Amino acid sequence: MSEPARIGVVGMGTVGSGVVRVLQQSADHIERQAGRPIVVEHATVSDLTKPRSVELPRDRLGTELAAIADNPAISIAAMLVGGLEPARTMTIELLRKGKNVVTANKALLAEHGPELFAVAQATGRSVSFEAAIAGGIPIVAAIAECLAANRIESIRGILNGTSNFILTRMEEDGSNYADVLAVAQAEGYAEADPTMDVDGTDATQKLALLAHLAFGVWVPWATIPRVGLETIDQELLRFADELGYRIRVVADASREDGKLAMRVGPTLVRKGTPLAETRGAFNAVSVVGDAVGPLFFHGLGAGELPTASAVVADIIDTVVGRAAITFRTTGMLEADTPAASLTGGSSSRYLLRLHVTDRPGVLADLTNVLGSEGISIASVIQHQTAAGTAAVPLVIMTHSCEATAIARAVATLDQQPAVQAATSCLPVLDD
Amino acid sequence: MSEPARIGVVGMGTVGSGVVRVLQQSADHIERQAGRPIVVEHATVSDLTKPRSVELPRDRLGTELAAIADNPAISIAAMLVGGLEPARTMTIELLRKGKNVVTANKALLAEHGPELFAVAQATGRSVSFEAAIAGGIPIVAAIAECLAANRIESIRGILNGTSNFILTRMEEDGSNYADVLAVAQAEGYAEADPTMDVDGTDATQKLALLAHLAFGVWVPWATIPRVGLETIDQELLRFADELGYRIRVVADASREDGKLAMRVGPTLVRKGTPLAETRGAFNAVSVVGDAVGPLFFHGLGAGELPTASAVVADIIDTVVGRAAITFRTTGMLEADTPAASLTGGSSSRYLLRLHVTDRPGVLADLTNVLGSEGISIASVIQHQTAAGTAAVPLVIMTHSCEATAIARAVATLDQQPAVQAATSCLPVLDD
Repeated sequence: MSEPARIGVVGMGTVGSGVVRVLQQSADHIERQAGRPIVVEHATVSDLTKPRSVELPRDRLGTELAAIADNPAISIAAMLVGGLEPARTMTIELLRKGKNVVTANKALLAEHGPELFAVAQATGRSVSFEAAIAGGIPIVAAIAECLAANRIESIRGILNGTSNFILTRMEEDGSNYADVLAVAQAEGYAEADPTMDVDGTDATQKLALLAHLAFGVWVPWATIPRVGLETIDQELLRFADELGYRIRVVADASREDGKLAMRVGPTLVRKGTPLAETRGAFNAVSVVGDAVGPLFFHGLGAGELPTASAVVADIIDTVVGRAAITFRTTGMLEADTPAASLTGGSSSRYLLRLHVTDRPGVLADLTNVLGSEGISIASVIQHQTAAGTAAVPLVIMTHSCEATAIARAVATLDQQPAVQAATSCLPVLDD
Repeated sequence: MSEPARIGVVGMGTVGSGVVRVLQQSADHIERQAGRPIVVEHATVSDLTKPRSVELPRDRLGTELAAIADNPAISIAAMLVGGLEPARTMTIELLRKGKNVVTANKALLAEHGPELFAVAQATGRSVSFEAAIAGGIPIVAAIAECLAANRIESIRGILNGTSNFILTRMEEDGSNYADVLAVAQAEGYAEADPTMDVDGTDATQKLALLAHLAFGVWVPWATIPRVGLETIDQELLRFADELGYRIRVVADASREDGKLAMRVGPTLVRKGTPLAETRGAFNAVSVVGDAVGPLFFHGLGAGELPTASAVVADIIDTVVGRAAITFRTTGMLEADTPAASLTGGSSSRYLLRLHVTDRPGVLADLTNVLGSEGISIASVIQHQTAAGTAAVPLVIMTHSCEATAIARAVATLDQQPAVQAATSCLPVLDD
């Protein structure tokens, strides 16, 4: 029998426990796939006394990174600590000590990716991160390897399961955002502090990583236009439904006129299209390549075992030697997109929802604002309301226009005396 | 600059032309992905005078395999000739002459896979075949690499675009099978001789290859139960619609009680599920792994460029060295399924459509047949028909039962005097 591959697991939270569980429960199967046994030589935790759902011998569990970093028998470290620090320092230490790193930490890579990749290149080690994006969906391998013959034209995804869970519950139950968030927290679909999920940060960080793989450009995630979930209410969901759409938080990166347009935020997606039918905690990614055409992937984007599936696949890839090759070839990618135009976002149809004073001439005034930006109107909905209502909802669906034009129009609309509240503006995807 | 990788293209039909086109049009992009240029050193055709849609210098085009096999500068051969012979002999010759082989020929692999893989192992070369299954969908890489941590529980797919095109046209237009087939042939979605597509052979061969990757068992494709498309008529489609289902040709391989159940044929799939929403020439594959849970892939399963996307990805994989590793690790797979039970198919609900004499007592007689096999009935549809109609359609949806039980029941039903025509029996997928 071949000598086992010995790995260190840094962090035994949900994902770390899942990795140890999969490596233990499917040891025979994984040994066949990797050509040798894969053994958890050591795992680090922050608190040794905390009860755990998986068993490791006491002498393989500790609190010090050095027990992994300084053990020459360990060739691979699964870096499963979240957040930026000490995760960044630990990762650099592991790479410098000659470990190949597998990680699920998308915030770390989105913030410090270039630095960490440079350290790995300098030390001749690899960094693999299939688990960092869309959990169990093998989207990193798909883009970095399987679609290598393609110039990618667009990537559109539902990359955050928490916000998708909240949106589909709001849609299906008619509950409001705050109530559904409380349910999601109680059921474990949302963190105690869900900020990074619901404000779009998490999806934006994942989109930045996908864009690096697909377009060869490193876009600082914080520069990508991003809209949170808290702007969505039942009235918007009902208007969307009436028009034949659902609302999903879509992360979108598309080539347009040789530039790259990126944005993350609530988007109208036509019912019956794959993104619209992605419900609950599922993730989905739609990729268009110039040769392959449209490809669609759907699966669980989070959770102990789906994420562990991706981490262990990366560990096996590292053991057999594929990860080293992939890290090298991915590193070869240079920008083949002349420039990233990130302020605009791509051209699109838009849905505007305004709350306006119910008096004669208002619709003409508002549509004139759109007209002066060259935006033409596809349809308008204004339902009859009780006499004397102070503000009535008015919904306008535009024809396709530039993101900069609609942004200027919305700013002007919000200054009109008849407009009672901030106008909601959602891009529309019809395919 | 690195020395180019030189490849030979055997066969310049649709796929071969697509491969040359992609390598030419995306040369810069592919060079970055592979770390060196990839050059078509030679291509073989059967007829040099035939006009072609891609340009190759005259001295790089010939009719003799030896120009590729005996050229030491060529390290990779794209084997894009269809059928069994001479494709088998040519592939063996290429491997023996030291070429790594990339192929899209699923019939060749389903028939002669073990022999060809053995030759490749003996010569230290690789055989890659992403393009042989589901065209541009990277399902081979997904199962062989990305899901390596999982024991696969089931694979269900729409693997033949021609039959899916025909079925969805029948469903949407209300046309009959023969008329839609003629349209499909006129529009290029069906071959002049569509037998292998519509009788399920093509999908069954692909399923056999997927099962080899996923379950580590080599199942001769001809032993897999297979039902063709020509059994489907408008009446069946209407009853399925009435019950909330569509009909799709599903290739299904599932573990059940430690055994592997496989079958290919028209199947009721519940509306709204991903397989039911797969239309036209698209392919789709749904995989369930014990860690990752359900994963779904959707894309173009055929056509010049989608298939070329997969072939060129395999060529790049071979150039960078990943293919050699993957071929070795896939070869390591041994059977982890004790035995393949192929006569039965897995347990399922079934839809039965009978044409019966309209007289008192018939329904009781027929349902007694089911009862005596322990099959219970979930619902029955019999619509009122004009008095004096000789045979009326009767549809029965069963609860879940074993495939062997329903097969015995159908055989008994077809012997009843009241049964006027062969009973249609379709498995039902609810998720």
